[in-house]
Amino acid sequence: MTRSKTPESTRQRILETAERLFAEHGVFSVSNRQISDEAGLGNNTAVSYHFGSKAELVRAIYLRHNESLDRLRAKALEQYAGSVQLRDWLTCVVRPFTDHLVSLASNSWYARFAAQLMTEPKLRELGLVDVGQTELQRTIIDAVHGCLPDLAPAVRAERDEMARVLIVHMCARREPGLPDDSTEIWNSTATGLINALTGLYQAPASH
Amino acid sequence: MTRSKTPESTRQRILETAERLFAEHGVFSVSNRQISDEAGLGNNTAVSYHFGSKAELVRAIYLRHNESLDRLRAKALEQYAGSVQLRDWLTCVVRPFTDHLVSLASNSWYARFAAQLMTEPKLRELGLVDVGQTELQRTIIDAVHGCLPDLAPAVRAERDEMARVLIVHMCARREPGLPDDSTEIWNSTATGLINALTGLYQAPASH
Repeated sequence: MTRSKTPESTRQRILETAERLFAEHGVFSVSNRQISDEAGLGNNTAVSYHFGSKAELVRAIYLRHNESLDRLRAKALEQYAGSVQLRDWLTCVVRPFTDHLVSLASNSWYARFAAQLMTEPKLRELGLVDVGQTELQRTIIDAVHGCLPDLAPAVRAERDEMARVLIVHMCARREPGLPDDSTEIWNSTATGLINALTGLYQAPASH
Repeated sequence: MTRSKTPESTRQRILETAERLFAEHGVFSVSNRQISDEAGLGNNTAVSYHFGSKAELVRAIYLRHNESLDRLRAKALEQYAGSVQLRDWLTCVVRPFTDHLVSLASNSWYARFAAQLMTEPKLRELGLVDVGQTELQRTIIDAVHGCLPDLAPAVRAERDEMARVLIVHMCARREPGLPDDSTEIWNSTATGLINALTGLYQAPASH
């Protein structure tokens, strides 16, 4: 195996190795030393040299995925522009996430990583999945709300939170042991989520 | 402070301290030493003496709560026996969990603990929240299914999983910083969940 030793390729190798180890074992069960060893760096200080703290490493993994996610969101927004159907806008919420996972093929660790960002107390403090919403995410959520004029803002906000929880955690549960071509699994997961979320958002809130 | 030094009270103190530390910092960020120190045991081997591995400690915390949960499930089953309303049976799914959290008052760490059981790769392997379903849980879920005769079994199973994910994770997100009387927060969380799950289960699956 030939390995380029540029800082950029080392950085890249750390990101990919760390993400896999985090997904498989949990962010706080993995040491910088394990990441260095698995990445074949033979230098235990490489991780802290390139990323500083574990929080910075986690943030870098998140941001890398969010770039692809935003490209897929832009595409979805273009496709459904002008629609007044709740189902279309929930497709724009769900599909970029599952399409991104399709693009990762069997090498997909991101859903499990994102699920930990939403759940682990110390990672939630970083506010990445909850608060770090992009402009495009806000545009899509505004369009979802536009289809639900009768829902009280507090109920809407609660259901937005439920939607995020469901998408990330259900995908995380489907991710281990994917086949080489994961298209069918993610398409079916997306359909299940879009159907369920359409019912969830439309449910009366009167009790 | 007077402390009885019987093995039972030591065991109890370890369980309570471990649960709080696990909820606040994450199961894998907490060492046996920290648990011993915080429990005021002055003996670093107390945790492994009483519980063996961390997995056994996690299981003991889970089982202790599941006893109370099953008592609340029995009560709910009695109240709604004979009903053919989906909403009633979803109340039996949601309420025992939130009523248990009400009983823990501001001293509630269980939802965050259970959320980690469902998400952390190493804890999921223990199969506690996913598979460790009690007889009463199965009776309630069968009644939910009885209200949805047209839903394909695979879709039903997927929505059962979504329901579990939503209940545990939404409660975990409401749990930090509870007031002394948490009744109102958990009642409102329960109502939000029951409304949303009623829509989620009733959504057509035809796409």
